Amino acid sequence: MRRNTRLVLRLSDFARRIGATLENVSNGQDPEVIGVGALEDAREGEIAFLSDTKWIGQATNGKAAAFIVSGEIRVPGRPCLVVPHVWKAVLAAIDLFWPDEPAPAGVHPTAVVDPSVQIGEGSSIGPLVVIEAGAIIGKRVEIGAQCFVGRDAQIGDGTVFHPGVRVLERVQVGRGVILHSGVVLGSDGYGFEIIDGWPVKIPQIGTVVVEDQVEMGANCCIDRAFLRETRIGAGSKLDNLVHIAHNCKIGRSCGFAAQVGVAGSVEMGDGCMFWGQAGVRDHVKLGNRVTVNAQSGVVGNLPDGVTVMRSPAVPATAAARIIAAEDRLPEALKRLRVLEKKME
Amino acid sequence: MRRNTRLVLRLSDFARRIGATLENVSNGQDPEVIGVGALEDAREGEIAFLSDTKWIGQATNGKAAAFIVSGEIRVPGRPCLVVPHVWKAVLAAIDLFWPDEPAPAGVHPTAVVDPSVQIGEGSSIGPLVVIEAGAIIGKRVEIGAQCFVGRDAQIGDGTVFHPGVRVLERVQVGRGVILHSGVVLGSDGYGFEIIDGWPVKIPQIGTVVVEDQVEMGANCCIDRAFLRETRIGAGSKLDNLVHIAHNCKIGRSCGFAAQVGVAGSVEMGDGCMFWGQAGVRDHVKLGNRVTVNAQSGVVGNLPDGVTVMRSPAVPATAAARIIAAEDRLPEALKRLRVLEKKME
Amino acid sequence: MRRNTRLVLRLSDFARRIGATLENVSNGQDPEVIGVGALEDAREGEIAFLSDTKWIGQATNGKAAAFIVSGEIRVPGRPCLVVPHVWKAVLAAIDLFWPDEPAPAGVHPTAVVDPSVQIGEGSSIGPLVVIEAGAIIGKRVEIGAQCFVGRDAQIGDGTVFHPGVRVLERVQVGRGVILHSGVVLGSDGYGFEIIDGWPVKIPQIGTVVVEDQVEMGANCCIDRAFLRETRIGAGSKLDNLVHIAHNCKIGRSCGFAAQVGVAGSVEMGDGCMFWGQAGVRDHVKLGNRVTVNAQSGVVGNLPDGVTVMRSPAVPATAAARIIAAEDRLPEALKRLRVLEKKME
Repeated sequence: MRRNTRLVLRLSDFARRIGATLENVSNGQDPEVIGVGALEDAREGEIAFLSDTKWIGQATNGKAAAFIVSGEIRVPGRPCLVVPHVWKAVLAAIDLFWPDEPAPAGVHPTAVVDPSVQIGEGSSIGPLVVIEAGAIIGKRVEIGAQCFVGRDAQIGDGTVFHPGVRVLERVQVGRGVILHSGVVLGSDGYGFEIIDGWPVKIPQIGTVVVEDQVEMGANCCIDRAFLRETRIGAGSKLDNLVHIAHNCKIGRSCGFAAQVGVAGSVEMGDGCMFWGQAGVRDHVKLGNRVTVNAQSGVVGNLPDGVTVMRSPAVPATAAARIIAAEDRLPEALKRLRVLEKKME
Repeated sequence: MRRNTRLVLRLSDFARRIGATLENVSNGQDPEVIGVGALEDAREGEIAFLSDTKWIGQATNGKAAAFIVSGEIRVPGRPCLVVPHVWKAVLAAIDLFWPDEPAPAGVHPTAVVDPSVQIGEGSSIGPLVVIEAGAIIGKRVEIGAQCFVGRDAQIGDGTVFHPGVRVLERVQVGRGVILHSGVVLGSDGYGFEIIDGWPVKIPQIGTVVVEDQVEMGANCCIDRAFLRETRIGAGSKLDNLVHIAHNCKIGRSCGFAAQVGVAGSVEMGDGCMFWGQAGVRDHVKLGNRVTVNAQSGVVGNLPDGVTVMRSPAVPATAAARIIAAEDRLPEALKRLRVLEKKME
Repeated sequence: MRRNTRLVLRLSDFARRIGATLENVSNGQDPEVIGVGALEDAREGEIAFLSDTKWIGQATNGKAAAFIVSGEIRVPGRPCLVVPHVWKAVLAAIDLFWPDEPAPAGVHPTAVVDPSVQIGEGSSIGPLVVIEAGAIIGKRVEIGAQCFVGRDAQIGDGTVFHPGVRVLERVQVGRGVILHSGVVLGSDGYGFEIIDGWPVKIPQIGTVVVEDQVEMGANCCIDRAFLRETRIGAGSKLDNLVHIAHNCKIGRSCGFAAQVGVAGSVEMGDGCMFWGQAGVRDHVKLGNRVTVNAQSGVVGNLPDGVTVMRSPAVPATAAARIIAAEDRLPEALKRLRVLEKKME
């Protein structure tokens, strides 16, 4: 958890610590720096940042003590902290004022941990956590309050579970993963067959594998596979309330905005991006770097690099033309009627 | 929690208690009243209510002992309880038969509450709750079983958390707020930057502020801001599974039906209404009293009072014309072909 | 919970146990069988299955030790296990290699169970569960870790709650029901009235009734009724993150894919199917066997057996024609303009 240390630095000291070169600083000017703010509402003493010249006006009007910039961008007449990479510097600044404080190592006395569980050094098991037999917890793992880790589950080094995460039996979670409150990994896939006129449950005996550095937002649900595994590729980032169904293979560095749903047995490459409330039909295969616009629904395979929108989804350029044409449709029908009358 | 007291009243006594004038009651008729029912299925002895003349037929056919009505509305030949405001009277009736019973004050022995936590008088902390250091709980607060309240969080007077709510560090919740099971306040906003070809997490050091008298349905997720706060205005009501992203500013008395998603940094005024599964793109600014129809997607700023629908959303009147025209589109294409042939 | 017993059988023995007749087995050939796999990735020693001739090619190329088939379907030159019903045989095979092991009967010492709670024989109450006064738990029920069962709730025989389910006060759950982690039954329906210019909560004093053999995916939310009951019919199956609002009456054997939302007071018959992210407007009445395609939005009553799509939803055949016509719309507008010019 990050906490504000109430650190106060001189600007020159701050610049040194984040590796920035100061520009536009008047002689002897060395104000106090107390934190990081956004351009539009930075308070006195806060550092803001910008990575596009279009924000220079807003920067000039704001109260920020100085601006983290790079390349040729400067805020005229205002102290600038020139760095090679703006976001790396912002991250360094946040680490200064809001350092990440690991949870205290050890097992809380109210946690219910089976004696067979292996816990690596430096790991923290919070209050009222349940960890079942055979689970293996890596080093420096943080399992927040009231989490559940099922039988034979494995959790990699440096992974963080916020309070109330549930990782069910046999699920494998990689290193440096972050799961937010209410995430469920390993619920049964939606598998039923109509037998003798009644829906019968097909047991889901597979599992879920979450690779390294994945992050999942609150209340996401990832179902276990029917027979093998549902896999979330390294570095993929899921926003809140995302659903990934059984047997899916998600590539590396894929992004899922909130409330996206991916149906069963979908496979995709790396670097795909799904905007809010988008959906994908079952058994679809997507290439690398496919982008699906918000509220769109993918119903067929897509090659590398395409962007689609609408439900059912079509390429974004075609979609834009259809949307523009739709706006003119009511009037076009009138024009059609006029033509018909003329022809009569 | 509301519980049925099995109260039985004479109709005349009931009328007096809710401040109603009895009409259409025969001499000496004073039946027993045992509860409140809906027009269509009220049981014998139950009171029903109606606020529109179109329901009079249904009322007449039903079994209700009497009808709460106002203005000129009457159910002919049936006992009527005439009141100045139907819903106020219904609320009074529910309070009679199903009074709200506060949870017993005190901290359940199985709750894990840091010694530094301040708890106001009359508050109830349920079993297996976790409250971290520095949290401040107001008066007459009900924290249901298995809830989590993070470090330095603040909960206002008279607020109710149903079982399994998670309010994370530093989040501020106002007075008279109701959070249903599975709500998560303060999960990290979805913030990543591609640095050196890999998505890097941007720490979310802001918080969430929930103003007075907000209600949130089960499994809603409200993300903490990147730097400042995500704010939910007083009196706003969220149905189940709603997602509000980081940095949003939601006005007062806004309504969000189930599964609505609001992307990051959206700002809106008061009295906006989003119907089921609607969405709003990031950084959009909406005025007051904007209405977004179900499954619609707002992609740009909107002024006060407009109603929009479709994805991407357009004004509802334009949308209605487009939808009507679409129905005729397949046939219009044929007519177009006929015209073309004639022209040849 | 199902666990792999690491059972190894001879093919002939396996055939006998699932009631299959072996075909295409060479003299003396009786390989080891170690589990069940999918056609496309069955490992050596695993049994695969197919129920359509179109998969024969894939089967032939795979490594499976043998194939469960029925009717006239055979995989040429490969051992086949001929059975009367493929899925029944697959279920029997899964039960052999991954038997369902009931949780140990008894109440975990960390569970907080009111003395008035009735628990039937063979039931298992997991760690850190909370069960409030007056609840009645049937026989052979499994209540997983950290679940909550509210006051006077009733849970039928053989029902399974995975960890972290919350069933609130007075809710009734039938027999053989499966609820996955994070399910909430009995949160308040979304009921507010504007009184004196401010949204006022309408108490929800009804309940939820879940009939026998229903299954609900992770983080589903079912709201309690305003006055009576929200009812989920026997055998209905909900995928993850489904929302069913107050007062709904869901028929038997209905299916809800992930993220479907059903608004208040909707009634439907038996065997309806809603695909992913579909929605239904409040107070709509649907017949039996209505199918709603993914991301579609039902806004009016529908008779038995229809399939609809789009938002607002129209019959699927009309929708298909509209979608096809839309693709041609931009070009049609150009053709219309050409005609107009010719007419001038």
